[in-house]
Amino acid sequence: MEALKVLPIKPEPAITGFANFESERVLSALPEELKRFYVKIELPLLKRLPYLLRERELLYALLIKEEKNLCLIDLFPDKPQRVLGCAIDLGSTTIAFYIYDFISQQVVKEFSIENPQISIGQDILTRLHFAKKEENLKFIQEITLSAINEVLEREGGEEIYFVSLCGNTAMTHFLLGLPVNYLIVEPYVAVVKWIPLLKACELGLKINPKGRVFVFPLAGTYFGGDLIAGLYEVELKNKEGFSFYLDVGTNAEVVLGGRDFLLACAGAAGPALEGGIFECGMQAKAGAIEKFIFHPEKKRFEYQTIDGVKPVGFCGSAVIQLIAELFLRGFLTPEGKFERNRAKDFLFEKEEEIAFLLVSGEETQHGAPIYIKESEIKSFLRSKGAMYSILSLLCEKVGISFKEVEKFYVAGTFGNHIDIKSAVILGMLPEEALFRANPLGNAAGKGALKFLRKADYEEVKKIIDEITYIELNVEPRFMELLTGALIIPHVNMDLFPQVRKLLEEHICFKL
Amino acid sequence: MEALKVLPIKPEPAITGFANFESERVLSALPEELKRFYVKIELPLLKRLPYLLRERELLYALLIKEEKNLCLIDLFPDKPQRVLGCAIDLGSTTIAFYIYDFISQQVVKEFSIENPQISIGQDILTRLHFAKKEENLKFIQEITLSAINEVLEREGGEEIYFVSLCGNTAMTHFLLGLPVNYLIVEPYVAVVKWIPLLKACELGLKINPKGRVFVFPLAGTYFGGDLIAGLYEVELKNKEGFSFYLDVGTNAEVVLGGRDFLLACAGAAGPALEGGIFECGMQAKAGAIEKFIFHPEKKRFEYQTIDGVKPVGFCGSAVIQLIAELFLRGFLTPEGKFERNRAKDFLFEKEEEIAFLLVSGEETQHGAPIYIKESEIKSFLRSKGAMYSILSLLCEKVGISFKEVEKFYVAGTFGNHIDIKSAVILGMLPEEALFRANPLGNAAGKGALKFLRKADYEEVKKIIDEITYIELNVEPRFMELLTGALIIPHVNMDLFPQVRKLLEEHICFKL
Repeated sequence: MEALKVLPIKPEPAITGFANFESERVLSALPEELKRFYVKIELPLLKRLPYLLRERELLYALLIKEEKNLCLIDLFPDKPQRVLGCAIDLGSTTIAFYIYDFISQQVVKEFSIENPQISIGQDILTRLHFAKKEENLKFIQEITLSAINEVLEREGGEEIYFVSLCGNTAMTHFLLGLPVNYLIVEPYVAVVKWIPLLKACELGLKINPKGRVFVFPLAGTYFGGDLIAGLYEVELKNKEGFSFYLDVGTNAEVVLGGRDFLLACAGAAGPALEGGIFECGMQAKAGAIEKFIFHPEKKRFEYQTIDGVKPVGFCGSAVIQLIAELFLRGFLTPEGKFERNRAKDFLFEKEEEIAFLLVSGEETQHGAPIYIKESEIKSFLRSKGAMYSILSLLCEKVGISFKEVEKFYVAGTFGNHIDIKSAVILGMLPEEALFRANPLGNAAGKGALKFLRKADYEEVKKIIDEITYIELNVEPRFMELLTGALIIPHVNMDLFPQVRKLLEEHICFKL
Repeated sequence: MEALKVLPIKPEPAITGFANFESERVLSALPEELKRFYVKIELPLLKRLPYLLRERELLYALLIKEEKNLCLIDLFPDKPQRVLGCAIDLGSTTIAFYIYDFISQQVVKEFSIENPQISIGQDILTRLHFAKKEENLKFIQEITLSAINEVLEREGGEEIYFVSLCGNTAMTHFLLGLPVNYLIVEPYVAVVKWIPLLKACELGLKINPKGRVFVFPLAGTYFGGDLIAGLYEVELKNKEGFSFYLDVGTNAEVVLGGRDFLLACAGAAGPALEGGIFECGMQAKAGAIEKFIFHPEKKRFEYQTIDGVKPVGFCGSAVIQLIAELFLRGFLTPEGKFERNRAKDFLFEKEEEIAFLLVSGEETQHGAPIYIKESEIKSFLRSKGAMYSILSLLCEKVGISFKEVEKFYVAGTFGNHIDIKSAVILGMLPEEALFRANPLGNAAGKGALKFLRKADYEEVKKIIDEITYIELNVEPRFMELLTGALIIPHVNMDLFPQVRKLLEEHICFKL
């Protein structure tokens, strides 16, 4: 059932008798299917109960689903126009909001704001180190809460009775004001796994004071509530056969799931894929190149930018597509070196490194060229190799091959934009992903939203209980797998028969 | 298990790994038998967790048992000297307190104070009518809470983490500030049956702010939390065969219980038995006559008073004994009339009624005589007859005879002092009660105390769910039974063979 239910009820009149209680009149008027729950009625409502029950024959009951029971938190004499919930994906860069109306059972609004923590530092580690001091932790919690509260007050305030929120491990600690001092040093201890359902006032959220806040639990230091929300959204265990859940953000988190298990692994595959390591990389905003296409006749890279303005740099979603393009055009060797001969017109030296010119300074907003360096491609290969190796390792652990994987669910903003074909060509994803990839968009946000519609605490708990984690640094097999995967697409070309065929047919190799 | 548990725990050190949580380190250090529970850790404690866990290797966990889960509410670096609970029997005249130490598992103090509500009115009905106005209800709640808080602050304050409280239906409403307006008019509706476990701050009790308050549920307008606490104390269903639970206060509440059932009945048997209706009746304090014995040679009543001072009146516990004495000495006929001839030296006219002189004015503190009137005895006979008829009716309903009743548990202050033999002679209790009566003392207070030791929410819930109530005013059989029971001991002397034998042998009848 939903996190919150508004139900019309018609209590029986009070009659002379022994067991004559206002509370039981209300409870026995609830629909049959709710009677198996223990339904609490809170004291402030009890005090108003005799009067409310005599004001109207028909009342509207507002029930919140708690972890082990229901709670009747309000009774309205008239049908409320709106009773809102809010799902929040507290990302490190943006905070996504979904305003949901329990009356119309519709999402009424959906938008994002910038995470105010960016003022402290772009990357999470800076913020974590900042928050080591108690007053700084308080500060970071306060700016986070006040950014969220500003939205909540504007979008409904007292009309909002339930908030479902997910964030990665660091975000969750910041939000709750939990010390991060031991999260950032070995052995990287998070404070809490399961977060009990909170009352709005316990956290200081400016919704209805009778409301509740569900914060998605954490499954590990690198496995936060955003991932759990994503897994809750996708329900791997209810799918046919085996499937992968990939979330590529700052880290790459991968889960292989089947009916009875969730096998998880996380690696620092993210930064290289996100564009963070590239000198010319940038956030996905106006002026960011999203796509490069080499024009053989013009012998130059055509591109498209966000908002169609002059380019400033390229964003994360362009990286994979760009490197695949460089490779397919023969500018890049399988080892990730620039093909000195074929690429000679584009190569130049940049601070004692070799760089490949993509856009000349004359075309850019800032007048400086946009380029990619060989060392950056090397970093990328480590990331893409790590990703493939993680996928291989998980399959090996379960004893299946990629052929047996039904779906590759790709979450995260990155997942939304990833060019699956390019990723396969580069050997980041296996060929099976080509037709079985399923971009999820903001799976975390959707999972938080799903919790408003179907507040299944047990299901969420099951997910964190079922996850088995593979520690890469104690897996010698991972290093073996990685060695073969540092090549484009792979040392063993038998693993990529279609890519081999494509390469054989590809025009650039025929030139 | 106890409402509160203090446990030494030794959390495992944090090690590098995926699922590395301070919370899980604490939870997995709990003893095996607690692991089946869902153990909540509240946010304020989570914030201190990383530091506490690094302060000491051995910590003392403070767990509170809630309705559906446990809650870890504190961790102490050192073993606390005392961790207290307080059981409270909120009676309409006195409030009884039991201070219990969870560390030593001992009751450390036990005492009563006067209920401050007496300033509003001696009897409950006056207070209920007073409380119809919202500000008056607030006032009555405030004086009750502040009397309780004064004790709690003095006896432990922040050291007290759990309060278990019971009171009759009116007392419970006053305590919680629930409107009584519909409790005092037909059809007599109480606001609440089951009261959810409260946080100390929700009720405004001045114990540790992390503490909880359990208020015993109500089973009906005349069947309050005090009775439920008494039944919880006695555990009728766990006794061999059938037994009676009798609570005689302002009302007489009777429960017949067996393994599978609790059959309850309440009647206005109380006032007459409590001494309230007697002109010379008084509270049990200095100067109250507790016992009368007729001295045949001196032809006068000898007596003993509380504190041995000059008499002022007689208290409730003397009533039954006195009337039995009058009857056995032949001063009273089985119909409750004074035996005009034999009693002639004691009879005098009092406001057009016949009164029996017990103590002459020369012997009393106030100089006025102490006496009992014929009309008062008539009222008493109705009460005693009602009690016997209720017992008979309940047995008939279950289809058993008094012989099959194993025990007669007698609760209440009255139950403590009742002279069972006199009650049987008068036909208020069946002869079977003679050797099977079991005075319980303050069963309600003991039940509240038991809840500190064994916080069995489900058991308490079962009691209110299992009680079936017999409505006297819709039972024509009750009136039939009552008719026979208005005689001393009973119209049908075959029901009282031993009393018959006693009467035949008794000296006064041989005179």
